[in-house]
Amino acid sequence: MIQRKSFGSDNHAGAHQAVMRALAQANSGDAVGYGADPWTDEATAALRAAFGARGGVFFVFTGTAANVLGLSLLLRPYEAVICPESGHVNVDECGAIERIIGSKLLTVATPDGKLTPALIAANLGDRGDEHRVQPRVVAISQVTELGTCYTLNELKVLREFCQAEDLRLYLDGARLANAAAHLGCSLADLAANTDILSFGGTKNGAVGAEAVVVMTEELAASAPFLRKQQTQLGSKMRYLAAQFLGLLEDDLWLRNASHANAMAARLADGIRDLPGAKLWQPVDSNAVFVRLDPAHIARLQRLRDFYEWDPSAHVVRWMTAFDTDETDVDHFVADVRRTASTANSSSDS
Amino acid sequence: MIQRKSFGSDNHAGAHQAVMRALAQANSGDAVGYGADPWTDEATAALRAAFGARGGVFFVFTGTAANVLGLSLLLRPYEAVICPESGHVNVDECGAIERIIGSKLLTVATPDGKLTPALIAANLGDRGDEHRVQPRVVAISQVTELGTCYTLNELKVLREFCQAEDLRLYLDGARLANAAAHLGCSLADLAANTDILSFGGTKNGAVGAEAVVVMTEELAASAPFLRKQQTQLGSKMRYLAAQFLGLLEDDLWLRNASHANAMAARLADGIRDLPGAKLWQPVDSNAVFVRLDPAHIARLQRLRDFYEWDPSAHVVRWMTAFDTDETDVDHFVADVRRTASTANSSSDS
Amino acid sequence: MIQRKSFGSDNHAGAHQAVMRALAQANSGDAVGYGADPWTDEATAALRAAFGARGGVFFVFTGTAANVLGLSLLLRPYEAVICPESGHVNVDECGAIERIIGSKLLTVATPDGKLTPALIAANLGDRGDEHRVQPRVVAISQVTELGTCYTLNELKVLREFCQAEDLRLYLDGARLANAAAHLGCSLADLAANTDILSFGGTKNGAVGAEAVVVMTEELAASAPFLRKQQTQLGSKMRYLAAQFLGLLEDDLWLRNASHANAMAARLADGIRDLPGAKLWQPVDSNAVFVRLDPAHIARLQRLRDFYEWDPSAHVVRWMTAFDTDETDVDHFVADVRRTASTANSSSDS
Amino acid sequence: MIQRKSFGSDNHAGAHQAVMRALAQANSGDAVGYGADPWTDEATAALRAAFGARGGVFFVFTGTAANVLGLSLLLRPYEAVICPESGHVNVDECGAIERIIGSKLLTVATPDGKLTPALIAANLGDRGDEHRVQPRVVAISQVTELGTCYTLNELKVLREFCQAEDLRLYLDGARLANAAAHLGCSLADLAANTDILSFGGTKNGAVGAEAVVVMTEELAASAPFLRKQQTQLGSKMRYLAAQFLGLLEDDLWLRNASHANAMAARLADGIRDLPGAKLWQPVDSNAVFVRLDPAHIARLQRLRDFYEWDPSAHVVRWMTAFDTDETDVDHFVADVRRTASTANSSSDS
Repeated sequence: MIQRKSFGSDNHAGAHQAVMRALAQANSGDAVGYGADPWTDEATAALRAAFGARGGVFFVFTGTAANVLGLSLLLRPYEAVICPESGHVNVDECGAIERIIGSKLLTVATPDGKLTPALIAANLGDRGDEHRVQPRVVAISQVTELGTCYTLNELKVLREFCQAEDLRLYLDGARLANAAAHLGCSLADLAANTDILSFGGTKNGAVGAEAVVVMTEELAASAPFLRKQQTQLGSKMRYLAAQFLGLLEDDLWLRNASHANAMAARLADGIRDLPGAKLWQPVDSNAVFVRLDPAHIARLQRLRDFYEWDPSAHVVRWMTAFDTDETDVDHFVADVRRTASTANSSSDS
Repeated sequence: MIQRKSFGSDNHAGAHQAVMRALAQANSGDAVGYGADPWTDEATAALRAAFGARGGVFFVFTGTAANVLGLSLLLRPYEAVICPESGHVNVDECGAIERIIGSKLLTVATPDGKLTPALIAANLGDRGDEHRVQPRVVAISQVTELGTCYTLNELKVLREFCQAEDLRLYLDGARLANAAAHLGCSLADLAANTDILSFGGTKNGAVGAEAVVVMTEELAASAPFLRKQQTQLGSKMRYLAAQFLGLLEDDLWLRNASHANAMAARLADGIRDLPGAKLWQPVDSNAVFVRLDPAHIARLQRLRDFYEWDPSAHVVRWMTAFDTDETDVDHFVADVRRTASTANSSSDS
Repeated sequence: MIQRKSFGSDNHAGAHQAVMRALAQANSGDAVGYGADPWTDEATAALRAAFGARGGVFFVFTGTAANVLGLSLLLRPYEAVICPESGHVNVDECGAIERIIGSKLLTVATPDGKLTPALIAANLGDRGDEHRVQPRVVAISQVTELGTCYTLNELKVLREFCQAEDLRLYLDGARLANAAAHLGCSLADLAANTDILSFGGTKNGAVGAEAVVVMTEELAASAPFLRKQQTQLGSKMRYLAAQFLGLLEDDLWLRNASHANAMAARLADGIRDLPGAKLWQPVDSNAVFVRLDPAHIARLQRLRDFYEWDPSAHVVRWMTAFDTDETDVDHFVADVRRTASTANSSSDS
Repeated sequence: MIQRKSFGSDNHAGAHQAVMRALAQANSGDAVGYGADPWTDEATAALRAAFGARGGVFFVFTGTAANVLGLSLLLRPYEAVICPESGHVNVDECGAIERIIGSKLLTVATPDGKLTPALIAANLGDRGDEHRVQPRVVAISQVTELGTCYTLNELKVLREFCQAEDLRLYLDGARLANAAAHLGCSLADLAANTDILSFGGTKNGAVGAEAVVVMTEELAASAPFLRKQQTQLGSKMRYLAAQFLGLLEDDLWLRNASHANAMAARLADGIRDLPGAKLWQPVDSNAVFVRLDPAHIARLQRLRDFYEWDPSAHVVRWMTAFDTDETDVDHFVADVRRTASTANSSSDS
């Protein structure tokens, strides 16, 4: 247990009480396994409607699993994925894409975690050459791993580029709720620009549940088999579905995300004027990336647990969650400022 | 929701209240993700002690995932697994072993789902031949997919044979609790005959949690990486761990399994004298396999949902769970007998 | 070097002089690599015509490679191959299908190495069940690993069954020439019953060259990429193509195969009346499978090198090649008879 | 057939007459398949001695196959390969490493195709983190894909760095002969700095043959099985071995490589003073990389077939082979100069 509210990750938070209640409600009597239960039916139908998904909705347990399943539905063995160098699929999944799908990732350096048509186009030179993997999927994250969001227009431009180039678009939505909250748009607005996307429950207040949303029927045909083969078919599926029912009730998912975003904005505001602290990326979601003096980082880490994103650039990442409150933020800001001023005084001396 | 108690599968049952309470207790405050939390520490330590495991304990979400992780720790790319034809890894995992590990299963026909040294030995003829995969792991299930249990002596004999033949022994323990209850032995007694085994929580009253137990340190070194790569590293791990804490408290796992076994025995007793019904396998656990007249099966399936295990042999499977009670069994037996006598009268007319 | 003509395998033979001449002729001047050369053009066109293949012809180096490439063009990740237990893909490729394609083989016991609709049908029970791999390809060998041939009518019946069941048919033609010679049919007659097949040059007098023949355009689109990815794109492709040019000239492939078959028939005739020797399979090609007394086998192996196919059944395999001559056969028969009579006399004493 | 000597690739050349003779000599009588023949014995022993390899020598058909086999012997499933972005394994193998081994390549941008300890060190930050693949192998090419060579001292420094960091070193030696010729060192000198390396025959005058050389016994144990599984076990292995016997006789491999290198040097000398032509990389082998005016490239490509290595940088690659003669070079230089001056005059007009 962590004593003070953690700004280390949004998965340090527990689960929202509404999710816990939904789990308890689902725990009544028997239900057929593997998804043939009323909770799964209801959650699936609700998400299909919310996303405008004609293909289907498939629950899995982790974000990595969602990415593997989603991408595996889009790729033949010699096809490749174009993604940002900083993408979760490239950096943080211990090579799951290469191991389980067997496909190469063609990575693109980006300043802000976001792909553009120009960045993608630079990887399309080898089409038709049998010596080279063939780019087929563009994989983006929304929110990106750097906390930034594509605007709806940026997504639309990407989508049109992909369609013109016969590329499919996969969106890693581990923090999709935060993007919807930031952009003030619907889930369907985001989904409309993709072929397949994931919708993360875990970082949004669930115990552990992600959904793979397949926009077209044609792409969904393999999904039940691949989910099972990829070890992600839950036998008591109702408990995955129930978590989404909890998050969907009265748009809890959106309220959770909006709140977390607001807390990140408050945090950013709290240190914006701090000498030596510089926001590294725009705060479009619940993540605050800041450049700090290394000595400052070291002092703050004695008080607080957080992730040094890029040690060579002295960039740290602070994250808020659905249950971060204003006092938590203010205390954290105070710790940041306190360790900064100590820094200054010590460097003064 | 199923109105009457299901005998279709032990995963039709919900979760035990003690597990739900443990989940609620774990839902307090922040905790570092991916297993660096006190619940994971406690559950891991308790299971290590219970199994006598020097390697480690790794939580995953599904039984298929446990089998994939466990086997992947034991195999090099050209090595193969000897397993019963009826094994879950062969039949019910949509080819996960072949896809994720890339290894061949050398399957052995067995009358009772159990391997013997003689059955294994028949697959060892090609050792050293570069054209053939090399048998390296023997994979058994305890309880088997046919509801039978290896005796401790049978396990010991298997283990000694494997050691003499330089084979490793993996045990799929999706229903390990039922085996321990049936044999009246400890988890450590079962584990001592294996290199790696799984311990299933899901069918024993959990929401969805399995543990991969690695008996030696040497075999565990790759496990954290492979669990992540295989999409099974839970970010809010405490909720997996908490389920095991719930099951371990006052040996709930054993009480749940003993009760389920007793209900299966009651069910078997209830139909033992029924003309036309014949027990197909010994009732060593919470499964009852019965041969019935096909017309009888058809009539009973109009009332009850269960799995026709082997349609060509007219064998059906009925399962009990931790929450099956004596009345449930008696009603089910009554349905079986009623549809049987109808059968007789209808065939009389 | 082996002093006496080997009956151990048709790959103990060297290459036919016409193949060596074709290699020498192709060794003139420069040619663009990876198949953009006139020899590849010519051999490909000739084979497309001979097989009636609209998809394409792809040269590879080994029979295992041909099977991997051919099957990989037909399978999605959760789909499986139904094949005889004795199939080369199952027994003799060190798990290449499972490793490189990642697909499960559903094996069927057969008395003669041949599949039938009834044997296939027994593996179709799980279609649509997400827990099970989905049968999609039937893989047969012609000639089979037991030296038997499907008749054209048997192939047609298989093909019609597959089409009715939405199954694709792959044919491993490592010894296709011997089948065509036995049946007195064209390569196109054999190919017409398949989706993809291989045509083996190596055992027919080549140095080492196999062709994957894809019957329809749609199935061939991935082939150039998968051949490269599977490590089988030869840079100096002309030397693969030239081997086929050598075999195709004046139907050398057919003359080689007919001759080898005739030598096998002569060998079978030579031992047919031998007490204690019993033909195990019909001699439809260049292989003779015989049951012999174990003591007889042991004595003969002191003189001759051959493969004990099934030690428990005392079945041995003797193979002829394009360069086996009548004297070779007669000497071999004499050795068989001599060691047999010794056997008899020794068992008499 | 190409009329004028090609400078497009060293695999446009045919095979050396000595290799053809060796093939013919191996084509005598029967030999046991899969490598149990005297030619394989002899070639293997000669190469083991030449490289100082205690592990073994394994023949395969293509350079991609050699890289896949070599790397597969060094990697566990969660381990990764650090290689130059320009490496053949990354660019030109259609994703074979990811597909067949399942491992991630961690690519490093390099100006000259060569890795350094500093470049490698930048990829070692995530060791021990289960979310990340674990770097285990450094893969270099000697000659590199940019025609450059590591000096023996550079290799030694790399090797020491790798050993200090518990990294293994794999060397892609598709053009190893050219490196030995350039450095004036033995094959053993090059091999001593590696764990496993390949030795390319194809670009050195063979028909198509590569050798995987394993330096230690421990690393070689899996090689026979993995070669078979990776579809690269030739049944008539003697014809692979014979090609190396041809190349080893009187150090033909070295004479071929020295000659090709000399021809590249002559070509470089021929255009060194040409206005608008700029050598892009040092000419350490048989490749000449040149920056040219795009209009010049276009005009020259009307006369000559060659590879535009980097269209955006206007860099072209010209290659010589064992059979390129001085007249060929002089004609090519004349074509380059003629199209250049035309360029100048046309731009003058």
